[in-house]
Amino acid sequence: MNAEIISVGTEIILGDIVNTNATYLAKELALLGIDVYYQSSVGDNEDRLINAFEEGLKRSDIIITTGGLGPTNDDITKEVACKVFNQKMEIDKNSLEKIEEFFYKLGIEMTENNKKQAYFPKGAIILKNKNGTAPGAILKKDNKYIIILPGPPKEMKLMFEDEVKPYLKDMSNEILVSRTLKLFGIGEAVLESKIIDIINEQNNPTIAPYISNMELRLRITAKSDNEENANNMIEPIIEKIKDRVGKFIYAQDNISMETVVSKMLIEKKLTISTAESCTGGLVSATLINYPGISSVFMEGCVTYSNESKINRLGVNPNTLEEYGAVSEETAREMAKGIAKNFNTNVAISTTGIAGPEGGTSDKPVGLVYIGIYINGKTTVNKYILHGNREEIRLRATKNALNDLRLRLLEL
Amino acid sequence: MNAEIISVGTEIILGDIVNTNATYLAKELALLGIDVYYQSSVGDNEDRLINAFEEGLKRSDIIITTGGLGPTNDDITKEVACKVFNQKMEIDKNSLEKIEEFFYKLGIEMTENNKKQAYFPKGAIILKNKNGTAPGAILKKDNKYIIILPGPPKEMKLMFEDEVKPYLKDMSNEILVSRTLKLFGIGEAVLESKIIDIINEQNNPTIAPYISNMELRLRITAKSDNEENANNMIEPIIEKIKDRVGKFIYAQDNISMETVVSKMLIEKKLTISTAESCTGGLVSATLINYPGISSVFMEGCVTYSNESKINRLGVNPNTLEEYGAVSEETAREMAKGIAKNFNTNVAISTTGIAGPEGGTSDKPVGLVYIGIYINGKTTVNKYILHGNREEIRLRATKNALNDLRLRLLEL
Repeated sequence: MNAEIISVGTEIILGDIVNTNATYLAKELALLGIDVYYQSSVGDNEDRLINAFEEGLKRSDIIITTGGLGPTNDDITKEVACKVFNQKMEIDKNSLEKIEEFFYKLGIEMTENNKKQAYFPKGAIILKNKNGTAPGAILKKDNKYIIILPGPPKEMKLMFEDEVKPYLKDMSNEILVSRTLKLFGIGEAVLESKIIDIINEQNNPTIAPYISNMELRLRITAKSDNEENANNMIEPIIEKIKDRVGKFIYAQDNISMETVVSKMLIEKKLTISTAESCTGGLVSATLINYPGISSVFMEGCVTYSNESKINRLGVNPNTLEEYGAVSEETAREMAKGIAKNFNTNVAISTTGIAGPEGGTSDKPVGLVYIGIYINGKTTVNKYILHGNREEIRLRATKNALNDLRLRLLEL
Repeated sequence: MNAEIISVGTEIILGDIVNTNATYLAKELALLGIDVYYQSSVGDNEDRLINAFEEGLKRSDIIITTGGLGPTNDDITKEVACKVFNQKMEIDKNSLEKIEEFFYKLGIEMTENNKKQAYFPKGAIILKNKNGTAPGAILKKDNKYIIILPGPPKEMKLMFEDEVKPYLKDMSNEILVSRTLKLFGIGEAVLESKIIDIINEQNNPTIAPYISNMELRLRITAKSDNEENANNMIEPIIEKIKDRVGKFIYAQDNISMETVVSKMLIEKKLTISTAESCTGGLVSATLINYPGISSVFMEGCVTYSNESKINRLGVNPNTLEEYGAVSEETAREMAKGIAKNFNTNVAISTTGIAGPEGGTSDKPVGLVYIGIYINGKTTVNKYILHGNREEIRLRATKNALNDLRLRLLEL
């Protein structure tokens, strides 16, 4: 069974709002085992909406629409859907009462045009709107379905959760389970070349690499009649992949890099401090995203100037003189220095050229040195990162945390 | 002239990522006076992509695609577009060199499948990718255009800005000019109530308030045959609005809060240091987004623990004892302390409860105190911010910079 999502609204077509409804519905439908092959967006225009419905009904069993259920004349989704299915609308007393009640509760007087929201074709399943006035509906004709949902995400999601999901579950006999591996330190092409045979070996589960938030992800998706079977199909694939590229996989699903690193520090009872130049506080700020970090995070320093590197971290002026602020040696002394000054087991240091100015032929924009100190041993990695100033600093931060993760794995 | 946007990628169809590319392109095209009537999304599937192209070409002059230009086998957008236009691809030496250079710079080995990205049909306009490896292209056949752009927003946007926009400008005869006022410290409803008469007065320019990146924006858009006329229509409106809510407007268009504040500091020759608790380095990291900041930014401290507040900032232990770490008094001593220790004219301090744990009835999650020290005078503002841990810390950072801006305006 397959479905298609039509988002209705001129505000989407003009780019005034981001269409998060389609993303939400696509994910929910995938998890219900309902294939979504097309999503589309059209404005509040009858001809184009009819066109979208007719195209959609040719290729899909179910069309789910969001938006265009408001009280004003430019809200036409329900009317157009009925036209396409050639179904007449009549007032639904029950819905009308609920709308009147909604306004009464808010102490707002209900205007005539709100009544429009209480009209539905005979035999339609009417979907309650607990967060607004516009009810939704499920229309059916010759094994084709049009499911009409409101546009405001708060109203749409609750309606889908409460009424549409259970309805679709009964229709679908398959579910999709998806697991995501989060990788760092390997490129998309290299990854694929290392696991291409595994990818090509089978189509259930499917394996798809993609980039999200400047990181590489690998999604393994299994289709089955129940969750346990699906997971049993996914597990061996994950193991296979781990054998090939395990050290690049830092987490699964929704676990963040800072969560992984913070948990390792807490578990190993290692205190940490940070000395940041080019990242300017992003490393500490990212670590502190993890609520439990306070037990091990002692202090962070943003030593942007040479003076502060000398005064706060005890970097040797000669080192800065001889090798420069952006150098392996300086990164090393920064990491050692802050660990010593703040008396922590672990320290991270960053120094680099984020640009746009300040690059030279031997020290280009994007050059970043990251130092990791753990119980007396300091290692420094050199990176050439691409992107604008902000991206270079974000990538430097991600690399710093990943470098720390790899060092902690050795313990 | 009308265009339509096709977003290609299974990650969109499965709801793994939000499709912000379509939103960006829709907005940009509207500003170019090019009508967009349809947006659609399809997975990396040849038949369905062909179907989407053919449907689109029936009803639109221009099709713009994003995604599916990667090096892997499931990236097929360019190949399918050429098939639809019946155009043969051949290797473009110039693009190949650029891709090889990209990998060389990063010191990463280039794999065979990256070469795929250098193939284009004869006569196509090849679009440089300054942020990645995959070049885009403009294909033309019998007055129909297919414009192929990469999926990663950073790559797509830069390519559109630099090469596609000028190209489309030449094709369109009417233009929309849009200016954006960025506001902080005022709510959407209050803003609208203050300028509703100006909004209703006219429809060209139009005035639209909206929320972006947790901030309030006001977009003024004029339609005209040339840019100068459009700007002359917009200017008086902006002046009118400034008369009403001027102090909440911190910048126009693409100027960031950190740019505004940094420029004020540099212009007034004021050095700055930061002492952060709940924001954990976000304030310094945000300031350092501005490249020129190094001349005034002396040092930042992430004093997450009480000890560090005492040792590094000289906060009085009794103050922490009596009022707690999250208090007006502590914020005040933190700001004073860091300004004194690091000998700067200006200092920012933040202390608060970002949650999810740690809230009490009198000190709830979201309570944040922000201290601003300028040449001896310290002021502290109290905020109750909403959202999750990350949002509270981001809002605290934005408020800290805005508080500083307002203090600097008084000088």
